[in-house]
Parts: sequence; C-alpha cells; structure tokens
Amino acid sequence: MGETVADVGEFGLLERISEALSAETGAVVGIGDDAAVLNISGRVVTSVDTLIEDRHFKRDWSSATDIGHRAAAASMADIVAMGGQPSSLLVSLGLPVDCEVAWAVELMTGIAEEAAELDASVVGGDVARSNTVMVSVTALGSIQRDPVLRSGAEVGDTVAIAGRQGWASAGLTVLSRGFRSPRALVQAYQRPHPPYESGPAAAVAGASAMIDVSDGLLADAAHIARASAVLLDLDSEAVPVSDQLVETSSAFNVDPLTWVLAGGDDHSLLATFPEGAQLPAMFTAIGRVVAPGTGGPGVAVDGRMWGGQGGGHDHFK
Amino acid sequence: MGETVADVGEFGLLERISEALSAETGAVVGIGDDAAVLNISGRVVTSVDTLIEDRHFKRDWSSATDIGHRAAAASMADIVAMGGQPSSLLVSLGLPVDCEVAWAVELMTGIAEEAAELDASVVGGDVARSNTVMVSVTALGSIQRDPVLRSGAEVGDTVAIAGRQGWASAGLTVLSRGFRSPRALVQAYQRPHPPYESGPAAAVAGASAMIDVSDGLLADAAHIARASAVLLDLDSEAVPVSDQLVETSSAFNVDPLTWVLAGGDDHSLLATFPEGAQLPAMFTAIGRVVAPGTGGPGVAVDGRMWGGQGGGHDHFK
Repeated sequence: MGETVADVGEFGLLERISEALSAETGAVVGIGDDAAVLNISGRVVTSVDTLIEDRHFKRDWSSATDIGHRAAAASMADIVAMGGQPSSLLVSLGLPVDCEVAWAVELMTGIAEEAAELDASVVGGDVARSNTVMVSVTALGSIQRDPVLRSGAEVGDTVAIAGRQGWASAGLTVLSRGFRSPRALVQAYQRPHPPYESGPAAAVAGASAMIDVSDGLLADAAHIARASAVLLDLDSEAVPVSDQLVETSSAFNVDPLTWVLAGGDDHSLLATFPEGAQLPAMFTAIGRVVAPGTGGPGVAVDGRMWGGQGGGHDHFK
Repeated sequence: MGETVADVGEFGLLERISEALSAETGAVVGIGDDAAVLNISGRVVTSVDTLIEDRHFKRDWSSATDIGHRAAAASMADIVAMGGQPSSLLVSLGLPVDCEVAWAVELMTGIAEEAAELDASVVGGDVARSNTVMVSVTALGSIQRDPVLRSGAEVGDTVAIAGRQGWASAGLTVLSRGFRSPRALVQAYQRPHPPYESGPAAAVAGASAMIDVSDGLLADAAHIARASAVLLDLDSEAVPVSDQLVETSSAFNVDPLTWVLAGGDDHSLLATFPEGAQLPAMFTAIGRVVAPGTGGPGVAVDGRMWGGQGGGHDHFK
C-alpha cells in the first residue's frame, strides 16, 4: 500500500495537491492563502454540489480521476444551467486516514481536468478527516446577461433537452448488476459529459427556463413546472433514446425509458423556449408547456400526468 | 422522536430549510434555483470550510444552532483575514437519515444568524445523505483593496493578534473532561466570536500579512513565516491570557499557554504591521518579525525556535 494521508498529514497532503495542480488559475490569489481572490466580470454565479461515497459513488466502480471529473461536472453544470460561464472551483475533501495520497491527488487531478475543459481552475479548498470520502465542489462563474431561471416557462413554450440522457443511469444499472460493459454506458456513468456549451447558447437563444438534469428528467421537469406554475407535457417518442440504450435494456430486461425519464447523472440540460425561438444545435424538442389542469402544475408524459414517483432520486428516501 | 429527514425526504427538507431562512438575501437569485446569482462589487473573495461530526464537533457537546454558528464563523473568518467583507454563504449539508428535521433546520438557522452579524445571508446549497453530519460552508465576499496575504510580512514588522485566543481550546478541554463549566469557556468553544471587524481594519491600517488562527497560534504564525520567508519571534508575556484561562488552567492542571499557543477554534486574527503603523483598536502586539536564522523561516517563542510539534491541529495525524 502506498503512502496514506495519515503518513503525510493535512499540510503534507495540501502540499502534494498544490504541486499537482496548475498555478495558472487566472485568480488574483489562488491556492495557499486563507481565501481565493477572483476577478469576475459581471455578476457572480455560484453553486455547490457534494458527492458522498456509497451514496453517489463507489471506489470500486469509479477511479479517483473519474470521481473528480464527476464532482466538477456536477457543479459546473449548475452554472451553465443559469446561462453562466464557470471560471473557478473550491474543493472541500473529506478523506479517511487510510486513504492513499496518490488516490487523493488523482481525485484532484480529475477535478482540475474537468475544469480545464471550460478554462476553469481549482483556486482553493480544504481537507478534513472523515469516515468515508466526501467531495464538495463549489463552482463560481460569471454571467453577463439575465440568468435563466426555473420559473420562466410559459404556456406555448417548447420543452427541449440537450446532452445524453439515461446513459449514466444505464451504466449504473450495468455496474450494480456486476457487469463492466457496455463500456460506453459504464463510462457515461463514471465520467459524465454535460453539454456545457448548450447552457449559454440556450440563454442567447432566449430560453425562458432551464435546469441541470441531476434528479431525473421527470423530477427536474417537475421543478420547472412548479416554479413556473405550468404543466410540461412530454412526448415520450420525441425523447432521444440511443440504440445502445435500447440494446442494453433488452439484455437487462429494463424499459429504456426508465433510464431516460428517471436518470440524472448525465447532467443533461432541460430548457423551455418561447414559440418561434430557434433551438440551439444540441437541443431536441421533447414536449410543450401547457396550462395546468385540475391537478395543478406538474409533468405529463404523452398527456398522462406523472405522479412524482419513480422519476428521480430523493437521497433520503 | 420528531420527524426525521427520511420522513420528509430531500425536497421536503429543502423546503423546510428555505422556509426557515430569510428570503431577503441581497442576491439577484437566491435559494431554489440551480445556482445563486450575486452582485459583488470589486473583486470576489471566497473560501470553503467543512466541519465533520466527531472530528470538529460532537452533537452531545454543541447544539445544532451552535454548530451552525461555528461553521459560518470559520468560513467568514477566512474572508475577513484577507481584508474582505463576507456577503453570501453556500451550505452543503450531509445528514444521516435518522437526523431530525428540526435539528437540521436549527443548524441552518445558526448559520444564518452568524451570517446576519455581518449582513451576509445564505444564498444556496445542497443536502445529501451521509453517515455522520457534515457541514461545508462556502463564504463569498467582496474586497475593494489589495488582499492581505500570508506572504507579506517583512523584517522589522510588529506581530499582533486580535480576538480571544485559547478560550475555545480551554472550553474543549473542559468538555472533554466531562465538565460543563466554566460556561464562558465552554461557550467560547461552542460559538466562537471571531473579531470580524478587525480584518478590514487591519487592511486599512496597512497590515503586511494576516491569517485566521484556525490551526493554532504557533501553527498559523508558522504559515505566515514560511510564506514570507521570515521568523516570527513571539513574546509569551505579551500574549494576552485572560484571568479565566489562568484560573481554569490551575484547576485542570494545564499550562494556560498550551491553550493560547496551540488553540485554533477561536478564529482570532494574527497579523503583521510595518514599523510605525497604528495598530487597530482590537490588536495587541505580541512579537516582532526578524530575519530567519540558520533554522530557516519559522516561529520562535521568547527567542527559542518552536519545533512545529504541539502547536496546533493536523487533522490526519
């Protein structure tokens, strides 16, 4: 077994992590002081997302680098879902004392690699001892225009989705049944690829509402519906279901729509656009915003109200 | 037993928390969307600090409200230690499924109360299931002048401290030996009172270096010393030791200087000031910056080099 965090201690670990990260952060003050200092032009957009071992990942199923990519992706997807541009990440790590230093450094490297896809950097953070691995990433970014909220959807708008949807959830099913393939699905779970550029593009195209799909397509559609006091009527035939999902679903005896409608780990983007708006390239129309019926705001699939069960995660239930 | 987080679920819990927090956050977009949007004038200062149950607090020793106050104080102290002004907090909570909703709401109320002392607010966050309670607070603020770094101390500068130092550490000793009094010390541990206003005041007075004392007075003095490549020579007789600490130390058979030199949980501020600078009201001079000897940068107490042991926390060791 390699050197553990107990061997090098808190300050030794921070030193190893700093060495592994680029000093070119674009920050006025980066890692190593009490706080980071940033030049952010325009308004500041910020969000935090925490991954906890055995709830959100297993060290058997994902490499440290993968977990880092996923943690950074989850937070940065929240920034782009407002139409913002991520620039800086703060990382709070909780690590067991027997965790290897190399593992922790790889985790941070994964975070930094994912950030670099958007020219963002890790600018600070802290480490603490915990029983299980915990990775909390705060993303900060800038936004030059009005943020796209969950509450702006209006009757007549088109509902559209960008990015892979259901892949990560299928990959998780594959892993949880003890398999390692299809690789593409497993990798989609291990390392999501949120459609980052689609967030600002949707804002420019006039999106009326937008959300990062992290709880499940139906659950997050319901968040828009309730915030906007409307009904989102989705057309199941319009929702993109890849051939790979269909093939794997029949091998695993699962309805592929379960993955697509309830999966959240892909961090796809769900948005609504006013009538006549030109959908940005990566978006596919999957439904329409209509006036709520007697059941109130919510989500319908093919005209039938979705009851709110089985369509997403609730980590405490 | 009251209602637990498992009873209400993730979204129910978020709803209860939102209801308990003020909607007047000063944010363009506050709690309830994918990310918060903030107007921050000047540069952005940001830092994250995480408290983990049984490492940083015990639910037997601190109320939920106390833990909230302490978590917010730890993060906001980092902002003022740069000379900045905190305005907004993001909170990531990890909670066991059997945690009572009321406990979680009180924790968040404690965070919001501490923030309100600086006219700051909770603007967002997330909740997740974990085995033990975990509270990660990201503080964001603004800074209008050059940040005060750890690396600016120069030979000839005066070393000074603001705020209570050693009280929280003494309170922890009291609690860990099964006592509940002296109340003032126990309360200092449960709910620190960082000298928030002293951070910006030190910056205005021309402080050359500053740090939030969270690892211990000697350990944090060493952080300034190493970053500035100097020696901080502290005068033990000049370090303020309250009568209460002296009395309690004799009852507990402890050298009160152990608490004062190694304690970190008060979040006092340690700073260096150029010769001739007027120390702001709350600062007491406790030493001098001198050129490092053959032992290199570090800390000396009464002219004797401190070896780096027993002067602070290292959470992994």
